[in-house]
Amino acid sequence: MLFFENDYSEGAHEAILEALVRTNMTHLPGYGLDPICTAAKEKIKAACGGNPDVFLLSGGTQTNAIVIGAMLKSYEGVIAAETGHIAVHEAGAVESGGHKVLTLPQHEGKLRATEIEAFIDAFYTDETCEHMVFPGMVYISHPTEYGTLYTKNELEAISAVCSKYKIPLYLDGARLGYGLMSDGADIGLPDLARLCDAFYIGGTKVGALCGEAVVFKGNKTPKHFFTTIKQNGALLAKGRLLGVQFDALFTDDLYFEISRHAIDMAMLLKKGLLERGVRLFINSATNQQFVVLSNTAISSLRENVRFSFWEKLDAENSVIRLATSWATTRDDIENLLDLF
Amino acid sequence: MLFFENDYSEGAHEAILEALVRTNMTHLPGYGLDPICTAAKEKIKAACGGNPDVFLLSGGTQTNAIVIGAMLKSYEGVIAAETGHIAVHEAGAVESGGHKVLTLPQHEGKLRATEIEAFIDAFYTDETCEHMVFPGMVYISHPTEYGTLYTKNELEAISAVCSKYKIPLYLDGARLGYGLMSDGADIGLPDLARLCDAFYIGGTKVGALCGEAVVFKGNKTPKHFFTTIKQNGALLAKGRLLGVQFDALFTDDLYFEISRHAIDMAMLLKKGLLERGVRLFINSATNQQFVVLSNTAISSLRENVRFSFWEKLDAENSVIRLATSWATTRDDIENLLDLF
Amino acid sequence: MLFFENDYSEGAHEAILEALVRTNMTHLPGYGLDPICTAAKEKIKAACGGNPDVFLLSGGTQTNAIVIGAMLKSYEGVIAAETGHIAVHEAGAVESGGHKVLTLPQHEGKLRATEIEAFIDAFYTDETCEHMVFPGMVYISHPTEYGTLYTKNELEAISAVCSKYKIPLYLDGARLGYGLMSDGADIGLPDLARLCDAFYIGGTKVGALCGEAVVFKGNKTPKHFFTTIKQNGALLAKGRLLGVQFDALFTDDLYFEISRHAIDMAMLLKKGLLERGVRLFINSATNQQFVVLSNTAISSLRENVRFSFWEKLDAENSVIRLATSWATTRDDIENLLDLF
Amino acid sequence: MLFFENDYSEGAHEAILEALVRTNMTHLPGYGLDPICTAAKEKIKAACGGNPDVFLLSGGTQTNAIVIGAMLKSYEGVIAAETGHIAVHEAGAVESGGHKVLTLPQHEGKLRATEIEAFIDAFYTDETCEHMVFPGMVYISHPTEYGTLYTKNELEAISAVCSKYKIPLYLDGARLGYGLMSDGADIGLPDLARLCDAFYIGGTKVGALCGEAVVFKGNKTPKHFFTTIKQNGALLAKGRLLGVQFDALFTDDLYFEISRHAIDMAMLLKKGLLERGVRLFINSATNQQFVVLSNTAISSLRENVRFSFWEKLDAENSVIRLATSWATTRDDIENLLDLF
Repeated sequence: MLFFENDYSEGAHEAILEALVRTNMTHLPGYGLDPICTAAKEKIKAACGGNPDVFLLSGGTQTNAIVIGAMLKSYEGVIAAETGHIAVHEAGAVESGGHKVLTLPQHEGKLRATEIEAFIDAFYTDETCEHMVFPGMVYISHPTEYGTLYTKNELEAISAVCSKYKIPLYLDGARLGYGLMSDGADIGLPDLARLCDAFYIGGTKVGALCGEAVVFKGNKTPKHFFTTIKQNGALLAKGRLLGVQFDALFTDDLYFEISRHAIDMAMLLKKGLLERGVRLFINSATNQQFVVLSNTAISSLRENVRFSFWEKLDAENSVIRLATSWATTRDDIENLLDLF
Repeated sequence: MLFFENDYSEGAHEAILEALVRTNMTHLPGYGLDPICTAAKEKIKAACGGNPDVFLLSGGTQTNAIVIGAMLKSYEGVIAAETGHIAVHEAGAVESGGHKVLTLPQHEGKLRATEIEAFIDAFYTDETCEHMVFPGMVYISHPTEYGTLYTKNELEAISAVCSKYKIPLYLDGARLGYGLMSDGADIGLPDLARLCDAFYIGGTKVGALCGEAVVFKGNKTPKHFFTTIKQNGALLAKGRLLGVQFDALFTDDLYFEISRHAIDMAMLLKKGLLERGVRLFINSATNQQFVVLSNTAISSLRENVRFSFWEKLDAENSVIRLATSWATTRDDIENLLDLF
Repeated sequence: MLFFENDYSEGAHEAILEALVRTNMTHLPGYGLDPICTAAKEKIKAACGGNPDVFLLSGGTQTNAIVIGAMLKSYEGVIAAETGHIAVHEAGAVESGGHKVLTLPQHEGKLRATEIEAFIDAFYTDETCEHMVFPGMVYISHPTEYGTLYTKNELEAISAVCSKYKIPLYLDGARLGYGLMSDGADIGLPDLARLCDAFYIGGTKVGALCGEAVVFKGNKTPKHFFTTIKQNGALLAKGRLLGVQFDALFTDDLYFEISRHAIDMAMLLKKGLLERGVRLFINSATNQQFVVLSNTAISSLRENVRFSFWEKLDAENSVIRLATSWATTRDDIENLLDLF
Repeated sequence: MLFFENDYSEGAHEAILEALVRTNMTHLPGYGLDPICTAAKEKIKAACGGNPDVFLLSGGTQTNAIVIGAMLKSYEGVIAAETGHIAVHEAGAVESGGHKVLTLPQHEGKLRATEIEAFIDAFYTDETCEHMVFPGMVYISHPTEYGTLYTKNELEAISAVCSKYKIPLYLDGARLGYGLMSDGADIGLPDLARLCDAFYIGGTKVGALCGEAVVFKGNKTPKHFFTTIKQNGALLAKGRLLGVQFDALFTDDLYFEISRHAIDMAMLLKKGLLERGVRLFINSATNQQFVVLSNTAISSLRENVRFSFWEKLDAENSVIRLATSWATTRDDIENLLDLF
């Protein structure tokens, strides 16, 4: 069986496991106040440039709900694409914290600065706006749920709209490594640290057992965010579990290398599929490839490959997702292509 | 330096690390739907007897907030000792979920069945009770924050009060192993499964990197609890991280063995302290020993030992906590006793 | 100046004021436990048929948030039209209570049973549904925000979908009187009591100073709903304020008579506008009439009439809303028509 | 039957009813944006001195929950006496909004500045304070639940503690009129406006049908508080209902006169009781008098008088509450005294 279902079906990259084993018996303070966590954060800061604040959390939904909840006022909501992860696949975590997700149309998973601006502008010129949820933040994901990427121009335009209306821009980087290292990517960590008020660097889907690193522009860190993490049940007693992993990921560019490997494998797959005349649903530059197949072909493929069913296209064809990861091998790709 | 600060200052027991390494490259479904999680849950069920439902979560505050929130109706609160962890040290997580913690006096950290009953009875006979928070659950911890234990009789009495008023009994077992394996303990997992509507078996403080196993009496599992976990940001994409650890802990009685080891070390310490004429604040049968020392002695001890300051006793004396764990060695104890 | 801005710009119908004055010095128990509240509820029950439970609250947003919050489980959301009042104009009250509003397309303000069914069906057949917000209720308004009405057939079809999926149907009747008494209306209170699990009879917009009467199908009343009302800050110490008003409204069919009067005035207006060649945006049978005018005409009208600006239609034309009420006179209508 | 059960068992003072009747057919904008609401607020501002912000809400629990929720950050709780209304009799409204009530001992219903300071100081010197709920506000009531009053010195001391720790002081004035007009009262509205960050002037229990006027120190008004009111379901479409009542109450000192009348009646009662050798539970200077009677005497009194049972004192005696109001007459008092 070949595994292309997602980018989290193995454990951790071996360098992470080794670090966990190596540091295991070191006595450390709890709750992330240990020197390994500090070292990990310093490495992340260095990679981002400037002097942001870094916090380590366990998972993506947790991170989104806590960051969004901490940055919004109670009467505010968060703007997101109608396909945004927080709008669809987080079981209402943002609403559970009391905030509305204000959805806008998506364009291959992305928001457009002009549409965000038009929405906020219409809000403030509506004479009943005080009866409505204030747009208090913009949420985007990079890569998006469709594996697509914002260009630096697009991100700057969205950031400018947020600045204009004085609301934070928050970027969900669950798969950030794959975005940073894709062919032609023109956005790096320092750009994110400059253009976003907050973003997170995904670990779970990029080689860690768990863990996401939240980066706040220094003066945008919510007050007493440590207590907010605790209150939300997200403070690990053994904070080292997150520190050791991120320390390993940001040592010797491991995070970037394994991300690049996944991109290499995805591009090999993409090229192979196109050569074989397979239709791609979206032109994705990242580790998620969306493939249009007949329902018959899908059934047949299922015998040898694990993948994600994405959506029906028409009566006879559907879209599936094939994801590579740091763990995908060249052999995996070749064996997969042999099935087409 | 000797480390007696808490029971979570090392990583994981080596058998757990080995299991993580061994299973690392196995392709597994996400979100805890993999066969290792299933095996871990089956082993826990077998240890509990009967047919309870088991869920794996990451940490204690998270577990308390989610279980309590899922079992209470919106107009209900949870009864706890005034020193209960949820009442003091969880940053208001229960209130953040909308519920009041209704505190009762503690007796060496424990609630008394008679006082619980008197409180509930007074509530229902108060003609303004419909203007007040309904007592909707009883929360106890075992061992308590003071390292003390309920006897089976005490637990049965509390359980009977809960049954009488048809409210669930929930037991916080952050350090459950140390309670189950203490000298003279007369409560086992099957007792808990019979007497509690829900409880959790603490992993983080008993040898795991993270993880708590929630056990619900079969028909008491909240509907769609999986989604509730997701909504609260507590669903790990790599659920295997929890499954592998609990599978290791419940293979060949590892959980019980390492808990017993910590008790052995604590009893060695307790005996040595008493022999040296040191005063104990509470007669604790578990891995937490509370010691009364002069402030001068405390300052001096601090040069060689990490411990927790507990509370001031009078102008000249204070209470400190010394905790053993699965990782404490006989040498550690002897070296510590040499300082008294 | 002529007043057609809304149906709540005067105080109360004189019969209500008289009742307030008449009962003013009667000593009554607080919190709605007085005999006048009881009488009001009995009259409402009689008008609905069967044996529903009735509660009196102050306003529409309050009622929606409390009823929806009390009937949903924490992992559930409420289906509503994208133009539904709870989706747009209640400042995120439903989300503030922790629940997502799941929006579907509107058709002149209405939901379609077939689209509701398709949505719920797609939800349950989505393999990731446990990661999403469960559709736990259907919310409709009658009349809708566009003044349109469900037919009995349409309501029965929606009710049947709710029954099929075992979720409650809740109807927002902020302007219910105007719906019940419109020309050709085929839905009466007993139909609502039979087809809805909960609905409310709007008082604020139908002649009362404040007040909405919530009707629950007997076995659907949330447990301890009185306490839920108190917890949400909606329990008036002088509950008589609501009881006296609803008692007056449901004595001698006052509620229906004054609603019918508003409809008569609206139909007079509608007929007059059509005779004058004015274009209606929607064919509304109720007290809200939506009129298409050139922006120039709108500016000119504003000199003599208060109305609500609804939305831009194209570069040169917009939609305005003209609302009649129990307080609108035949003279008001004639004077308004003279301006066209 | 004589009525001393509470101060809200009649409707409204006749001047308020007259104002409602007189303004009834005036066309006014909704949501409190009308000139009568504005006039009422201006009169309240004038009575307070300075330039505070005033908002009109419907009831006490609603006001407390909204003001406290709007002024606290999510990780903060509110300090209150263990007998404080928000701690006991508001059905957990504050916790429902996500905040813990941090209770301190009461002294005849009052908090002590020294104890507040000691509590906050202990919090900030506790090394685990980041795991606990931050004390973010002080809540007091004046008069208290026991009818007692803070002296100006006491209030200044509490205000100074709040200033020292930069947290707001909020005063619940459900029965404020009775406090302001009691014999020897040395606190006036300008004092409250100077010493509190927020307080409310109770209307419901002082002659209105409903309504409480919240006063914020100008720069302490929460941003977009109008929307917060709406989101909490507390914005009346016919805001005039509140405006007309407060306009009447603050015209020609009506609020103060009727409060003084209730105090006169209470003092007549108190004097009469003392003359008859009846024991008072507390020395109350306000409209609530707490009387110790044998259980036999209580049963007997119940045949002719409505009162509130307060609490058991010992096996044979209990405490009852007798409340006067703006509606109590001299005859009522004499008839009541005749029963002793």
